Amino acid sequence: MKLLEDRIVKDGKVLPGNVLKVDGFLNHRIDVNLLNDIGKEFARLYANQGVNKILTIEASGIGIACIAAQHFGCPVVFAKKSKTTNISSDFYCVDVESYTHKTTNKVIVSKEYLDENDRVLVIDDFLANGCALRGLCKLIKDAGATLVGCGIAIEKGFQPGGKAVRDLGIRVESLAVIKSMNSDDGTIVFG
Amino acid sequence: MKLLEDRIVKDGKVLPGNVLKVDGFLNHRIDVNLLNDIGKEFARLYANQGVNKILTIEASGIGIACIAAQHFGCPVVFAKKSKTTNISSDFYCVDVESYTHKTTNKVIVSKEYLDENDRVLVIDDFLANGCALRGLCKLIKDAGATLVGCGIAIEKGFQPGGKAVRDLGIRVESLAVIKSMNSDDGTIVFG
Repeated sequence: MKLLEDRIVKDGKVLPGNVLKVDGFLNHRIDVNLLNDIGKEFARLYANQGVNKILTIEASGIGIACIAAQHFGCPVVFAKKSKTTNISSDFYCVDVESYTHKTTNKVIVSKEYLDENDRVLVIDDFLANGCALRGLCKLIKDAGATLVGCGIAIEKGFQPGGKAVRDLGIRVESLAVIKSMNSDDGTIVFG
Repeated sequence: MKLLEDRIVKDGKVLPGNVLKVDGFLNHRIDVNLLNDIGKEFARLYANQGVNKILTIEASGIGIACIAAQHFGCPVVFAKKSKTTNISSDFYCVDVESYTHKTTNKVIVSKEYLDENDRVLVIDDFLANGCALRGLCKLIKDAGATLVGCGIAIEKGFQPGGKAVRDLGIRVESLAVIKSMNSDDGTIVFG
């Protein structure tokens, strides 16, 4: 999606350690017009797939998911990161490693809000190592729901998450795929 | 807002300890059509006030804020809860107690995304003890921005937050104010 790539080049910052900072428009300050274009594109890519629920994970996926959901005419469920180790049987639960923070979170979805009648599109802002995304896919499987595919705003193509999820036979559509980036001169190559 | 009150009566659950569970439509599963009506109502209440930024706090405020922002034609900034105690000078930072979890979080906003040119509407899903809301108002003051007012979906009118914030001279518009609720029979009285 050229619009998103252009915005990443214009306002994104490449930091050492393969960090791409897009908090000026995506995950701290949010440009809702851009989110609307992103949502429209997901709706185009996943048209006629019977998507009736969007699943995301707190926090930065929520804005994209809610605005995309307007184009699908369906509700959003956001998975929560739980501090409690003791999860009640009312929830589906999966362990998700955070590559950034080197921690493991329990990620939960209430059994009330995900079931075998759901055709689910997973939406998130970033795909890098894929831990969160694989966790969400597992929650959908555990619920007996149908995973239609994943819609990602920015994929770091040089990290293993995208391949790992696609190798599971899951459709992943990333609107901007970064092939390489360089913190010395700030260049970003899309692929 | 009758639509929201009706939905609270229909799908909300009153639990012991003054807990109102609205995770079926507001803060776990999200009804984006309802959010759109909520956003429209905030836009009506705060019309012609020159609002050019919406500030909320992760996680459950983000969806409401993003959809409301579409009606204001402005960006959203969401304050982040930080785990680090050592906050860089690039951020405005305030301590916010969580009444539910009995913890204190540092809540931060990048100085890049809040400044003296901003006329800010604060949006959140709940107002109870008002700790988060007062924290957000303090961040706005620290940034030298103008606080236009607050837009709250559900206010627990029997808890002290609403009065505390209004006593500071801040305009607070809550779309549903709960006067009392009873976990024995599930009744909710609006006021």
